[in-house]
Amino acid sequence: MAVSEQLWRRAVESPVARLATVDAEGRPHVVPCCFAVDGDLVYSAVDQKPKTTQRLARLAHIAAHPAVGLVVDHYEDDWARLWWVRLEGRARLVEGGPEWERAVALLVAKYAQYRAQPPTGTVIAVEIERRRSWSASAG
Amino acid sequence: MAVSEQLWRRAVESPVARLATVDAEGRPHVVPCCFAVDGDLVYSAVDQKPKTTQRLARLAHIAAHPAVGLVVDHYEDDWARLWWVRLEGRARLVEGGPEWERAVALLVAKYAQYRAQPPTGTVIAVEIERRRSWSASAG
Repeated sequence: MAVSEQLWRRAVESPVARLATVDAEGRPHVVPCCFAVDGDLVYSAVDQKPKTTQRLARLAHIAAHPAVGLVVDHYEDDWARLWWVRLEGRARLVEGGPEWERAVALLVAKYAQYRAQPPTGTVIAVEIERRRSWSASAG
Repeated sequence: MAVSEQLWRRAVESPVARLATVDAEGRPHVVPCCFAVDGDLVYSAVDQKPKTTQRLARLAHIAAHPAVGLVVDHYEDDWARLWWVRLEGRARLVEGGPEWERAVALLVAKYAQYRAQPPTGTVIAVEIERRRSWSASAG
């Protein structure tokens, strides 16, 4: 199912996505993340807060198994207004250089919180291979 | 990391979780879902709305690859208030019988929307094997 322009814009402007990776045993892991979109690329930064082990796990999963899934969705009590946009793609880790700088600039432009304290860690870049969407109102 | 009682309660009362499954090619898929918790079990119902193909895909993934991941999280602009609870477990499909009835009763008790129109389809039962949590304020 193609993603309508309107739904895609709502997804891109959403503050939070959920990123699913697969661990060495083939089990899925899913975490919330901030993100910024640049064409067919989704960027997310690994921040510098505690829980380093968890974040390293996510990076190790991606290095070993680049296929990832992302979902951006809207929840409210009126279920006639629910929607989601689901992405499948391949993830890469970006540690520095022009792409890292561009990704951080996009994240800083999207999030006031990052303007106060820009991300300094690894960036996850997801090359979108498939987009799916659903909305309760559109059927 | 153990999940504090307070965080666990907030997660259980959240209206939406995100469920990650793995497809036949080992790629992760993630979708939002409603859910109800009963001890170490999480129940979610496959509703009767459109997009049957998507939902059948999820059920096929679970039948072939029972390991799933779930996350319940809180987002707001004040990043000092972010938290998430992440679950790993094994999923089963429940098509009927006493467990299906119990799951539907739990979902109906949690969601007013389900009281108006109770779920009638397959129930996904996840046996929780691991719980992880993180909160920005607790470090």
